[in-house]
Amino acid sequence: MPNKSRFLRVPVEPFHVEPGLGADEVVTRMERISFQGRSLATARGIWEKMLSGDCTIFLGVAGALSAGGMRLIIAHLLERRYADCLVSTGANLYHDLHETRGRRHFVGSPRANDADLQADRIDRVYDTYASEQEFCENDDWIADFVLTLERRPYTSREFLYKLGEHLWNETGADGILTAAYRAQVPIFCPAIADSSIGMGVSQARHRDASAGHIDVIGDIIESANLVIRRPRTASVVLGGGTPKNFINQASVQAEYYDDRVGGHRYAVQIVTDVPHFGGASGSSLEEAQSWGKLASDAEQVTVHADVTIALPLLASALASSASEMLAARRPPHFDLSGPVMAVEGRPLPEARFEERTK
Amino acid sequence: MPNKSRFLRVPVEPFHVEPGLGADEVVTRMERISFQGRSLATARGIWEKMLSGDCTIFLGVAGALSAGGMRLIIAHLLERRYADCLVSTGANLYHDLHETRGRRHFVGSPRANDADLQADRIDRVYDTYASEQEFCENDDWIADFVLTLERRPYTSREFLYKLGEHLWNETGADGILTAAYRAQVPIFCPAIADSSIGMGVSQARHRDASAGHIDVIGDIIESANLVIRRPRTASVVLGGGTPKNFINQASVQAEYYDDRVGGHRYAVQIVTDVPHFGGASGSSLEEAQSWGKLASDAEQVTVHADVTIALPLLASALASSASEMLAARRPPHFDLSGPVMAVEGRPLPEARFEERTK
Amino acid sequence: MPNKSRFLRVPVEPFHVEPGLGADEVVTRMERISFQGRSLATARGIWEKMLSGDCTIFLGVAGALSAGGMRLIIAHLLERRYADCLVSTGANLYHDLHETRGRRHFVGSPRANDADLQADRIDRVYDTYASEQEFCENDDWIADFVLTLERRPYTSREFLYKLGEHLWNETGADGILTAAYRAQVPIFCPAIADSSIGMGVSQARHRDASAGHIDVIGDIIESANLVIRRPRTASVVLGGGTPKNFINQASVQAEYYDDRVGGHRYAVQIVTDVPHFGGASGSSLEEAQSWGKLASDAEQVTVHADVTIALPLLASALASSASEMLAARRPPHFDLSGPVMAVEGRPLPEARFEERTK
Amino acid sequence: MPNKSRFLRVPVEPFHVEPGLGADEVVTRMERISFQGRSLATARGIWEKMLSGDCTIFLGVAGALSAGGMRLIIAHLLERRYADCLVSTGANLYHDLHETRGRRHFVGSPRANDADLQADRIDRVYDTYASEQEFCENDDWIADFVLTLERRPYTSREFLYKLGEHLWNETGADGILTAAYRAQVPIFCPAIADSSIGMGVSQARHRDASAGHIDVIGDIIESANLVIRRPRTASVVLGGGTPKNFINQASVQAEYYDDRVGGHRYAVQIVTDVPHFGGASGSSLEEAQSWGKLASDAEQVTVHADVTIALPLLASALASSASEMLAARRPPHFDLSGPVMAVEGRPLPEARFEERTK
Repeated sequence: MPNKSRFLRVPVEPFHVEPGLGADEVVTRMERISFQGRSLATARGIWEKMLSGDCTIFLGVAGALSAGGMRLIIAHLLERRYADCLVSTGANLYHDLHETRGRRHFVGSPRANDADLQADRIDRVYDTYASEQEFCENDDWIADFVLTLERRPYTSREFLYKLGEHLWNETGADGILTAAYRAQVPIFCPAIADSSIGMGVSQARHRDASAGHIDVIGDIIESANLVIRRPRTASVVLGGGTPKNFINQASVQAEYYDDRVGGHRYAVQIVTDVPHFGGASGSSLEEAQSWGKLASDAEQVTVHADVTIALPLLASALASSASEMLAARRPPHFDLSGPVMAVEGRPLPEARFEERTK
Repeated sequence: MPNKSRFLRVPVEPFHVEPGLGADEVVTRMERISFQGRSLATARGIWEKMLSGDCTIFLGVAGALSAGGMRLIIAHLLERRYADCLVSTGANLYHDLHETRGRRHFVGSPRANDADLQADRIDRVYDTYASEQEFCENDDWIADFVLTLERRPYTSREFLYKLGEHLWNETGADGILTAAYRAQVPIFCPAIADSSIGMGVSQARHRDASAGHIDVIGDIIESANLVIRRPRTASVVLGGGTPKNFINQASVQAEYYDDRVGGHRYAVQIVTDVPHFGGASGSSLEEAQSWGKLASDAEQVTVHADVTIALPLLASALASSASEMLAARRPPHFDLSGPVMAVEGRPLPEARFEERTK
Repeated sequence: MPNKSRFLRVPVEPFHVEPGLGADEVVTRMERISFQGRSLATARGIWEKMLSGDCTIFLGVAGALSAGGMRLIIAHLLERRYADCLVSTGANLYHDLHETRGRRHFVGSPRANDADLQADRIDRVYDTYASEQEFCENDDWIADFVLTLERRPYTSREFLYKLGEHLWNETGADGILTAAYRAQVPIFCPAIADSSIGMGVSQARHRDASAGHIDVIGDIIESANLVIRRPRTASVVLGGGTPKNFINQASVQAEYYDDRVGGHRYAVQIVTDVPHFGGASGSSLEEAQSWGKLASDAEQVTVHADVTIALPLLASALASSASEMLAARRPPHFDLSGPVMAVEGRPLPEARFEERTK
Repeated sequence: MPNKSRFLRVPVEPFHVEPGLGADEVVTRMERISFQGRSLATARGIWEKMLSGDCTIFLGVAGALSAGGMRLIIAHLLERRYADCLVSTGANLYHDLHETRGRRHFVGSPRANDADLQADRIDRVYDTYASEQEFCENDDWIADFVLTLERRPYTSREFLYKLGEHLWNETGADGILTAAYRAQVPIFCPAIADSSIGMGVSQARHRDASAGHIDVIGDIIESANLVIRRPRTASVVLGGGTPKNFINQASVQAEYYDDRVGGHRYAVQIVTDVPHFGGASGSSLEEAQSWGKLASDAEQVTVHADVTIALPLLASALASSASEMLAARRPPHFDLSGPVMAVEGRPLPEARFEERTK
């Protein structure tokens, strides 16, 4: 006699292993297992809904993902418009620039002798090494570039667009900054002052006091206006940090000026932090609903996993399963060349929040 | 001019996404990224070395992996002899038995109202549900089986072999217990008293005071003798807990009686616990070397990940990449039908540790 | 104008620092802060309710708490009857025995060279060292003791009582085993086979095949009968593991035979594991309600913290604030000297679950 | 016969519980236990060395510590000069301002129904609630204040000084911003654009396009110059995030211009993140040495704990044990009233890094 409880509807299907399974099929077989494997499969499904759902998709990337080998996945996601707007830490952009300029990160050990590394001027990121000397050269390169710019404040969004353009012209190489430039995908870096990109900019200031002015308050306004202009949004967050909060803040700030904004319709986060210590990085997507960062009927999932495991699998699965949705998708068209960006040919307002005539 | 530091030898290769990637290739491309993605790829490589390395491979499984949809992966690993001996929590065997008997676990929500579930007699494991009524029927089924056995103490190893045999005869269905029975792979369950398997056994005792005697001290002796008989060992641990320690303990106990035993030659653990709280589940494999649980030159890796993400990917990759090694492998042959097991036709000693004539 | 929302009732009170604050007052000031600090203060309050609430209080201890310097706190909690029944891993009892016998653990480093430690036969537990030679002597001492016992199976509860008695007679020293012996507090160790205590017992078996029989199935029955006899129970769990599950299992098993049992009335757990990987160690107390391990109206709290920080503070606070409750408490009186324990002078049944005449 | 190994020198001393223990004594008794309890006691000792060591002490605060009830501890640490410079997330300053203005956070539940909260316009931070309406009023209040300022760019440091001054003049109430103002302790907020403080500033820009310019690149320069001027530094980090990196970055940037800077001499971090996912929040202090963020002979400790448990205990202990060191301390004297701060009466350079005549 079958159990009649309303709670017992969909049985768990044990994962069957076979030789030759594709990444796509591995994720499909995770849909009916449990715990974080199921959450990862759910994330794939929600991302596909974003792609079909006429949303502006924000992608947030924190941690040391570029140094960790994820930068070409992120570039791929921007190029093919799995996402329409990137919010990043400075570190991820800096390490991307480092490799786009032809330098490398190196396979290392988490149990290295750090005094020996310091003596050799090697900087360690967990199990990955880089040359401090090469990092200093990047800083100089950034400062040189900043000094070529007109002397006025730049939002991080405009600055990074121009940096991507310069980098593409100089290297013709793939990477996050160059892919975003070519795909006209805006990048916001609200905590740019807390990164080596900011350090490079500060060295331009050192050489010329009128150089290197980044207008991060302008970033708040532009990002909120992007939401006001296209109130259907979605959020994919890899790793928490300032990108997660900035994406949510844009939604909250936009709603203040336009009540048609109602929080993200879809949300995926892949995090290792947990909610119970109260920090924003680990905060749950349920909590985000109390703030209106997320619509109360949003489809959402949190995947508790290291991005360097979850993202290669997820992106590989999507590359197979989402190709038709991507082909059918009409992503928003941006023009990023000016001090404020234009959406479908119409510029966002500068220095003020767009107020809708309702 | 290339950087000359000895630390900068092997560059990180950013992961390239393409449509149609197989699980095998996803893991291969993780070998040169960083953080836990690289660790997972390293785990694949070390497991392949175990398969080629003439080792007795111990597999430990903790957590709620069977309820979580991993039981047929574990069965697959035993059937094809990716591992030669299983150490498990009782929960994983009990939930396996539940499904092998044709009952199911169900897809649920981690944010369910647990009072409602209690009222409906639904038991929750994070995001997975099961019927308490069906669990009670399992307990009765186990008690009935126990009462068919001759009245004498059984090691958990012998008891689980007979349980698997009975289950196979009754159901003919795939699962951990039945796969282990058919492949003559021993299962140890040192904490059987802390599980529903133990509860079922205790209900047999309730019906007949002379029934249901499990000799867990005998398990210590038999597992150590297995190591003494074949001193080259390897360890794959999914999730920590008692299986992790029991596998290591067998090695330490064996070395006490035979100094040719020198700790596991290879070790892989996939855990979510961390070392810094001092518990055995999260303890590092480096620490295990201080105890001699691991050879000091062992190849080892810890993957910090949920098993329900890491194992489907890892097992799918191995199914492709390890097939030739598996075909060439000559795993140890066990006979499990007696009170003590036989290795290559020669029984292990009973009630004493094997002492080698050196 | 005050905010009228029903959700905004009790304001957070920022913690005020002053010189000379007692542990008691520190915890009191945590009652109105947030996150895990508040949870710790809540744990103190719930433990006080247990002491006033005519419950049998189970205490579970996992991890390496004895090696970590917590054993005299646990002894203190048993002696003064903050708890009435201990469920422990074997490791905590073994490391307790080691120190009660006059040996020591030592302050070490988590970044030690483990090959050097192995060469010196030093065993490491994160940042703590011990002598392997002394551990081997403990094993011999345990085996010698086992050989003095009558040749019959012993539950872990009875065995540990006799071990504590022998240890007290030999050393007269404070510790968990000796305090439990003197306070007639039962100790269950369901996973005794997965510990050095079990290894010592197995060495007695090696010397005499009729020695060293531990009846862990009997432990299931005796622990459930303890709950049936006194159906009001409470649970304090430090660190998850087998003790957490065994305490809950006793309640579930008891309810099977007596429907007046309704799950623990109060529950506190101090854990570092998290729920979202599905393992029992990290499972939430809400989830425990679905199983009936906890009454659906139970007062409960989870503290996400390392026990070595939380317990010294919590126990020191209770030593001041709970003294009157302890003085007024009438804990259950046990007699542990026989094969089954007696509660208030009346033995529990042997080899069967107590069925109530209702 | 005592064990002679060089590794076995300092025995673990089990913690003894007694009624009436002070916080100071609780921490002292943790010095000889293990795991994170010992680490917390070590943190107290290292902080005392910082106080005696003629260092500029940086304090970093991330997470939601102000909402969580920690703001008056932080204020206390600044007022009494346990630290000389604060680096904070915007959230901690915003929630501080909220309470200093007389509003409150409220005790809530982590399992609240967030749709209900959203309907009531209640914002949740894990187990803590606040009124969204009151938050909007704060934003207006900040915008009003910004519009009183001269129209020129302000570093976050200068801006927050003026904000603290205004808040003190208006409320006369204790808090982080007002304590820092009165004690002339600089506050840097490099990610100010990722916070409600930034949102308030952006609303001033909305009203007047020439208002609300924050010069975060100037913050990089001023913070590095602070290190160049006083090259002996120490770092206490609560919770990771941008403050942790910014404090380290100041040291790295300073060293670029003055090779007498050699990284922090002392470092304490209290974090819940872990190193193995590669993010900066969880990165180890050993790793920081490879970058030169920390001197290779620095005394340092990581405490893996929630700040809301560790900090009340640690600060209460220091309030007793560090009083003489504090009385004897001669902290650096800053004047914060200008666009760049002065150290001991001598202004730091503006728009350039100070280069030492060596």
